[in-house]
Amino acid sequence: MSRADILARYRAVRAHTREICAPLRTEDYVVQPITDVSPPRWHIAHVTWFFEQFVLGKYAPDYKPYHPDYAFLFNSYYNLVGERTERPKRGLLTRPTVDELWAYREEIDARMTRLLESCDDATLAELLPVLEIGLNHEQQHQELLLTDIKFILFQAPLYPAYREDAPAAARRADTGWSEFEGGLVEIGHDGNGFAFDNEGPRHKQFLRPFRLANDLVSNADYLRFMQDGGYSRPELWLSDGWDVAQREGWQAPLYWLEREGRRQTFTLHGLRELQPDKPVRHVSYYEADAYARWAGKRLPTEFEWEHAIVQAGAMSAVSGQNQPASAKPTSLKLRRPGATAGKPGLVGQVWEWTGSAYLPYPGYRAPEGAIGEYNGKFMVNQMVLRGGSLATPAGHIRPTYRNFWHPDKRWQFTGIRLAEDA
Amino acid sequence: MSRADILARYRAVRAHTREICAPLRTEDYVVQPITDVSPPRWHIAHVTWFFEQFVLGKYAPDYKPYHPDYAFLFNSYYNLVGERTERPKRGLLTRPTVDELWAYREEIDARMTRLLESCDDATLAELLPVLEIGLNHEQQHQELLLTDIKFILFQAPLYPAYREDAPAAARRADTGWSEFEGGLVEIGHDGNGFAFDNEGPRHKQFLRPFRLANDLVSNADYLRFMQDGGYSRPELWLSDGWDVAQREGWQAPLYWLEREGRRQTFTLHGLRELQPDKPVRHVSYYEADAYARWAGKRLPTEFEWEHAIVQAGAMSAVSGQNQPASAKPTSLKLRRPGATAGKPGLVGQVWEWTGSAYLPYPGYRAPEGAIGEYNGKFMVNQMVLRGGSLATPAGHIRPTYRNFWHPDKRWQFTGIRLAEDA
Amino acid sequence: MSRADILARYRAVRAHTREICAPLRTEDYVVQPITDVSPPRWHIAHVTWFFEQFVLGKYAPDYKPYHPDYAFLFNSYYNLVGERTERPKRGLLTRPTVDELWAYREEIDARMTRLLESCDDATLAELLPVLEIGLNHEQQHQELLLTDIKFILFQAPLYPAYREDAPAAARRADTGWSEFEGGLVEIGHDGNGFAFDNEGPRHKQFLRPFRLANDLVSNADYLRFMQDGGYSRPELWLSDGWDVAQREGWQAPLYWLEREGRRQTFTLHGLRELQPDKPVRHVSYYEADAYARWAGKRLPTEFEWEHAIVQAGAMSAVSGQNQPASAKPTSLKLRRPGATAGKPGLVGQVWEWTGSAYLPYPGYRAPEGAIGEYNGKFMVNQMVLRGGSLATPAGHIRPTYRNFWHPDKRWQFTGIRLAEDA
Amino acid sequence: MSRADILARYRAVRAHTREICAPLRTEDYVVQPITDVSPPRWHIAHVTWFFEQFVLGKYAPDYKPYHPDYAFLFNSYYNLVGERTERPKRGLLTRPTVDELWAYREEIDARMTRLLESCDDATLAELLPVLEIGLNHEQQHQELLLTDIKFILFQAPLYPAYREDAPAAARRADTGWSEFEGGLVEIGHDGNGFAFDNEGPRHKQFLRPFRLANDLVSNADYLRFMQDGGYSRPELWLSDGWDVAQREGWQAPLYWLEREGRRQTFTLHGLRELQPDKPVRHVSYYEADAYARWAGKRLPTEFEWEHAIVQAGAMSAVSGQNQPASAKPTSLKLRRPGATAGKPGLVGQVWEWTGSAYLPYPGYRAPEGAIGEYNGKFMVNQMVLRGGSLATPAGHIRPTYRNFWHPDKRWQFTGIRLAEDA
Repeated sequence: MSRADILARYRAVRAHTREICAPLRTEDYVVQPITDVSPPRWHIAHVTWFFEQFVLGKYAPDYKPYHPDYAFLFNSYYNLVGERTERPKRGLLTRPTVDELWAYREEIDARMTRLLESCDDATLAELLPVLEIGLNHEQQHQELLLTDIKFILFQAPLYPAYREDAPAAARRADTGWSEFEGGLVEIGHDGNGFAFDNEGPRHKQFLRPFRLANDLVSNADYLRFMQDGGYSRPELWLSDGWDVAQREGWQAPLYWLEREGRRQTFTLHGLRELQPDKPVRHVSYYEADAYARWAGKRLPTEFEWEHAIVQAGAMSAVSGQNQPASAKPTSLKLRRPGATAGKPGLVGQVWEWTGSAYLPYPGYRAPEGAIGEYNGKFMVNQMVLRGGSLATPAGHIRPTYRNFWHPDKRWQFTGIRLAEDA
Repeated sequence: MSRADILARYRAVRAHTREICAPLRTEDYVVQPITDVSPPRWHIAHVTWFFEQFVLGKYAPDYKPYHPDYAFLFNSYYNLVGERTERPKRGLLTRPTVDELWAYREEIDARMTRLLESCDDATLAELLPVLEIGLNHEQQHQELLLTDIKFILFQAPLYPAYREDAPAAARRADTGWSEFEGGLVEIGHDGNGFAFDNEGPRHKQFLRPFRLANDLVSNADYLRFMQDGGYSRPELWLSDGWDVAQREGWQAPLYWLEREGRRQTFTLHGLRELQPDKPVRHVSYYEADAYARWAGKRLPTEFEWEHAIVQAGAMSAVSGQNQPASAKPTSLKLRRPGATAGKPGLVGQVWEWTGSAYLPYPGYRAPEGAIGEYNGKFMVNQMVLRGGSLATPAGHIRPTYRNFWHPDKRWQFTGIRLAEDA
Repeated sequence: MSRADILARYRAVRAHTREICAPLRTEDYVVQPITDVSPPRWHIAHVTWFFEQFVLGKYAPDYKPYHPDYAFLFNSYYNLVGERTERPKRGLLTRPTVDELWAYREEIDARMTRLLESCDDATLAELLPVLEIGLNHEQQHQELLLTDIKFILFQAPLYPAYREDAPAAARRADTGWSEFEGGLVEIGHDGNGFAFDNEGPRHKQFLRPFRLANDLVSNADYLRFMQDGGYSRPELWLSDGWDVAQREGWQAPLYWLEREGRRQTFTLHGLRELQPDKPVRHVSYYEADAYARWAGKRLPTEFEWEHAIVQAGAMSAVSGQNQPASAKPTSLKLRRPGATAGKPGLVGQVWEWTGSAYLPYPGYRAPEGAIGEYNGKFMVNQMVLRGGSLATPAGHIRPTYRNFWHPDKRWQFTGIRLAEDA
Repeated sequence: MSRADILARYRAVRAHTREICAPLRTEDYVVQPITDVSPPRWHIAHVTWFFEQFVLGKYAPDYKPYHPDYAFLFNSYYNLVGERTERPKRGLLTRPTVDELWAYREEIDARMTRLLESCDDATLAELLPVLEIGLNHEQQHQELLLTDIKFILFQAPLYPAYREDAPAAARRADTGWSEFEGGLVEIGHDGNGFAFDNEGPRHKQFLRPFRLANDLVSNADYLRFMQDGGYSRPELWLSDGWDVAQREGWQAPLYWLEREGRRQTFTLHGLRELQPDKPVRHVSYYEADAYARWAGKRLPTEFEWEHAIVQAGAMSAVSGQNQPASAKPTSLKLRRPGATAGKPGLVGQVWEWTGSAYLPYPGYRAPEGAIGEYNGKFMVNQMVLRGGSLATPAGHIRPTYRNFWHPDKRWQFTGIRLAEDA
């Protein structure tokens, strides 16, 4: 990429964060209703701090910290970088104000621009991989901003809408299945183009023949599970899942309400009637797993999922990487980020829970230093999700991408695709 | 009072709330760092709701609720009025926004003005006592606003100042004691002028001869207690107090910091050097009691306190009520609200913990209906404070006024005056 | 008292603890179902440790600790004596075993016997007040043993009985009231005979005319309160009480059950049909206060209660102390400890909640040293109970005796007597 | 097996539980210091209830429950069987007493004997698989009894010993490594002989070449990790592990103490000096993983582990199953249960944490009915351990056996074997 291209990409990613925040009121930036949800003011500062800490701090000549307290305030979890605000207390702070944080962003953007324009080629080559991580990092926070904003607005009994435009139209179902032969297959990123460290090394997995549902589980499907006693039959649930469901009183996915006898769901467009044909969203791994057991199926492993997508020939639509070993026709397609998800068989509508624990691939080593804390240290107690959601930015939907959350989390845009042995 | 006087008083009280909020940034209105501290946005709406609920709702012709959800959102604890937001969750809400709540205030003020100008005399006579409670209620929240704002600003590592003007100058100490004979004395409000229900009925208490310190315990006094091991000697403490001090790691009053070897204290004027001659503030009852035990003294009872103030002839400076039975000269004076507290012997600088539990006076009956929830239902587990602080509005410093808090609370402007048997 | 009398008294008190434990199985000695309830193995060791620590440790020649760890294990709350097992962890220990603790008791009894028989008169005179506190202390734990055993046995779904003999017969009600003139009265112990430090100094209180119910509130009375929505009407409750009742789901007194449509109550005699005429037991202060408000009455203050008992001339039945100032006939009588409580008007059937907070009397000073931790440091957050229960040992029912518990406690033998202004 | 053999096996397994409990005092049977640890009285009743519920309840003619409450009391987690005591409350019960529970065991043993002697052959064939699960279940609880007894005795400051015989002698270290080629290998039980459902289906896994340490990590090894700051360097830890280590204040494995400057460790033989050459025990997965990262190695996957053991030809020493595909010489051996573990290279000294999450093997289906709750519903949030410990009964050490615990658990006999890529 030319310097102009690099700068253009930097500006585009940064501008998108601002677009996401445009509908917010100042108050919405401040609160943290649950520990998982960070205040938007924290997000916009934290992604900026990443560039200050890891790019300017290392490569900018005569670098001086923007503010002596910001590293403490906006470091998220990089233990090697120093102390930080305890996560559950992010929502107790009111200063620096939102305006001050936008000013902080502008100053860092100005410094980044100067650095990218003026540094020598060797420095540019050295900082580019870190810059790329920083941009991908900000894009991950763009999806988090949307999930967190949704949760924050949900607290108000007024159920305010985040956006006023019409939601995507309902789609028709494709109830078919795609079949795959399995065998000894290659899994993981091949190194062409950007990927997170956790997507490699590319390695072999042995898969038995399996089938994958062309379509996601819909709200109507999930309602049948509920009406068949899904939330009151322990034999359908993992033990830890049953415990949390009882303790939290789960009776439906997050954001589902019953108001005056009608089922509604809270969306970024405000409170809406439940659409039976849309994919069910905001279910935990426990619910996804219980649903699959009820349906007599199972969740796919992350290896089956990745192999299926590659087999389906969807890769060319996204990038040149991971060319399919064969071109067996299937109905699975990867959504091109930004495109409307109206067709069945597309992945990229919701993050799809897999039955795989988030663990290092064989031969995985975390990078040295604080950047090494990005992925590796979370490889326990979480389940892998594949695909992407309507909130996922461009470049974050690819066959090898590994998203991961603890199995009780529900505030992300998560859904269910079934699998079975062939 | 004439209608014009009534309206003027209503407007003055309401305007003062707005003045208190003037230095706030929008973000400061939203958070609730601990359950005790309510977000300012909640305060300004709640005091407004009180007038809507108890005055307009009952007396305004063709009354319609301003918003169907506001009663739910801004009811504080009136169980009889209906459901309400759980107290610890007040800080999770971002809507209605602060601007919307100021608009709510303006509309209610307009409706109140119309009602007060146009209702017939009988209605006016009937609503006046409720109006008076509403105004006193708002004034109580004015002090709470200041205590809560201080606590909120304290969360930020930047230690922002609420106000930029110079703090009150230090005063010289008066180390003397005033002596009182006691006997069978009259305690409680006599019914002339406004008082809260908990200040009556006026009744007899028998007091033994006692002495009251002319001055409050100072920061320098309290430092000596600390340096003598005050926080590590269980024999000085009540058992419940020792437990909370250990659990919370108390080593000094709230807001005291050590930075680079210097003692500082966080104030509404930002971080300041500790002033040895100023009264110690932000101590719990447990600390006040432990200090008194260490000093070989005790806290006064609320009856001794009230009797001493009346005896001291301080009443005339405040109102015509409770004329002293005698005019024995003492150094105790009640601060005229709004005046600078620079002279020794004045009460009204900090709320003074007494050794009396908050209980009903003999013959006390709570009023009927929701207004009856104002005071009576809190008469357990709390200790009485007397006097008033620099944050206390006019009309809330009088000899019979009973403030009350649980004995572990420290974020109010609380201090210590010693007593001993004569 | 002669040495023989002293020894006889020591042996009698100590023997009674053993009698109380006779029906226990070894397992019953070990558990601590809630923090308030101590395992019986802890009680029997702790009361023994008191004699070892405060009598033998000070007065026995050549004293050596029985075991180096016992002071740590069986100190309850004497901070000045040293570290101790955290209270909530008493029920995690299985060693020393119950047999080893009985052996500990025997050895300490032997040493105490030797000391009391052989010490010189001056030493005897000096240790006697401590011995007396030790015996009264053990008697307090005798009542605690019974309340704790009851709670422990209640955990088992089998509802085992502690004792097999028949419970006391039901009594007839006396629905009358006794009236008292009040005035400036003397309250507190006069120093003749043993009393705890918290019963003095004797001092004056001014009482307004009042009436006291001759009889306790019965189960039938309390059922009417329940059937009238007592547990679902917040206007009847103190705010802190309402909170705890909601949080804990209170719908009836502790130990009340509904089984197959019948009301039953768990007693030391096992599960029994609820007896309408018996005094309601195992209610918290919050419930007692709510009941009184529902009934249009109030609880007596501890001063009214004490004055009434003295006025009623009940004292002569108990001891020579506190002779009544007058002999106005009333129906109130103090139960002679050990006697059956079958007659109306008797106090000593349940501990009676008063409306008085547990605070020091005017002029009270805690004794120096660890013994001073006995009463004074608990003088906050608790309410006074007067009278005594069927589990109260001889010598612990007297007009000036002040029992105290936090207002949410229900596992003690607590009940309700109403009062009203005359 | 003949009926006589079946009965002999039943009696032998049941008798061993009694042998394990022989050194206990009654008090030791009752407590539950942490939720993970069940009271021994619960263990002995629960394993008995299993036979009553699943064998007698289904196959015994004229079956009547031994006691109407026992199913409620001693069901552990079989949701389909009905309600049960909440797990954290097992230690609050004192009844039925230990003697009553031994009587319960005797009666069930008598009934089981009658059934096994007198049922027809078809019934015997049908019940045998359930009986076998019941016996393996009781053996699992035999190891739990020992881990739980150790934790219970550790609560007492007296550090009582469970057994008085001499502990196993220290062994010499074998610092070598065994190398394996990997490839597409078969994993899981082949169906010959008893195995739990989670050990199958047998299936293929692809392994890269790897090395496995011949010996376990020793106390001396682990001390070096500690002395190199192992517990204070976040970069060595998984994020969830770092959090729990900070929260719980971990500074060493469980049961390690420093007393008067010497390192000691609490064992079933009481408090002992730390033996440098013995395998480190009582470490969590988090500690095992951090140690491996510090050492520049990693933990083996469960597939590598199983393959290595099979390759090592250790199987013939244990059973005829899983004959090694090749006979490549290595130093790894499986301990014959019951034999002394004094030689290096043996597995079966501690349970060895693997880097594999506990998930179903491809094609796994839980059995129908309550028995199906045995293993499958725990397949989330836990890590697999392989091998066995000195507390593991005969028949529970085999190459395919999958033990599993949450990654923060430390009270099991858990240790560390390192692996690395070849």
